[in-house]
Amino acid sequence: MELTEKQIASELIYDGKIITLYRDDVLLPNGKTGVRECIRHVGAVCVAPVTDDGRVVLERQFRYPFGSVLTEIPAGKLDGKEEDPESAARRELREETGAQAEEMIFLGDYYPTCAYSDEVIHMYLARGITFGERSLDEDEFLNVQLVSLEEAVADVLNGTIKDGKTQTTLLKAYLWLKENRR
Amino acid sequence: MELTEKQIASELIYDGKIITLYRDDVLLPNGKTGVRECIRHVGAVCVAPVTDDGRVVLERQFRYPFGSVLTEIPAGKLDGKEEDPESAARRELREETGAQAEEMIFLGDYYPTCAYSDEVIHMYLARGITFGERSLDEDEFLNVQLVSLEEAVADVLNGTIKDGKTQTTLLKAYLWLKENRR
Repeated sequence: MELTEKQIASELIYDGKIITLYRDDVLLPNGKTGVRECIRHVGAVCVAPVTDDGRVVLERQFRYPFGSVLTEIPAGKLDGKEEDPESAARRELREETGAQAEEMIFLGDYYPTCAYSDEVIHMYLARGITFGERSLDEDEFLNVQLVSLEEAVADVLNGTIKDGKTQTTLLKAYLWLKENRR
Repeated sequence: MELTEKQIASELIYDGKIITLYRDDVLLPNGKTGVRECIRHVGAVCVAPVTDDGRVVLERQFRYPFGSVLTEIPAGKLDGKEEDPESAARRELREETGAQAEEMIFLGDYYPTCAYSDEVIHMYLARGITFGERSLDEDEFLNVQLVSLEEAVADVLNGTIKDGKTQTTLLKAYLWLKENRR
């Protein structure tokens, strides 16, 4: 089956702080027209920092859309389309948790909502972790905790950890470490 | 650290087909005000259908935000907030691939973008798969393929499969089947 859609028109609906929303008309494979709502996003990074003694650095952060505090790995937006993702991951890790990494292992890209957003999150496993001072943005509020990687993976599998990037990255980090006997 | 944010005001920016976008003012934990862009979404389901001979039913679908064809597991929106997620997962599976399942195993919830959307995707593993006719929506275009679960998991780990819900659900399904010796 032919699958490709072609843009006919594009209308900017909202240009915000995090989200830029477009409403586009497209030509469908069957020759009809359709509407695509599409968020354009600068891109982001996330990082599973695993210490030498097998613990992962997790964050507890209030997430407004859910009105509750969620457990996540450190993450953040790129400063711009050109920022090197590994540098951004090191920056977010240091700012949010105070941790620095000797080694950053790329675990692949993650498309959170490919139906209506072009956001890409670049996933990393960080090793050789040492801790210094964190430096949160003025309007950033989060608590940091250290949990054994096994416990965190169990919380992914039993459904306690619900954030998508955190689920994927923790499982990939766990399987990578097992595969590479680290 | 106190983490909770309180809504002060809410403005509807766009009420669309898939996306409803609000721009809210919030009171931050430090007493200042901030802005939260927030998408409200009806919710969705996704399902990893694994056949008796260990193959998973995958879809190839054009995703407009990326301008390319992606590999995903069957998925779709709830018909409404009240629709039972397991029924929705069975419906999407049947419509998109023609497959029916004897058993649906709930693998937990997945929040794709908790920073700016309240979307929840309910994840399932489907077993006891039989195939009938599929019945796509008029404006839905996708191809179906059967791939060994091991191969699909390898494609998650090596970064070939990029869709978030597909990565998480395939890894959870794989680990669930291993754990339960199925």
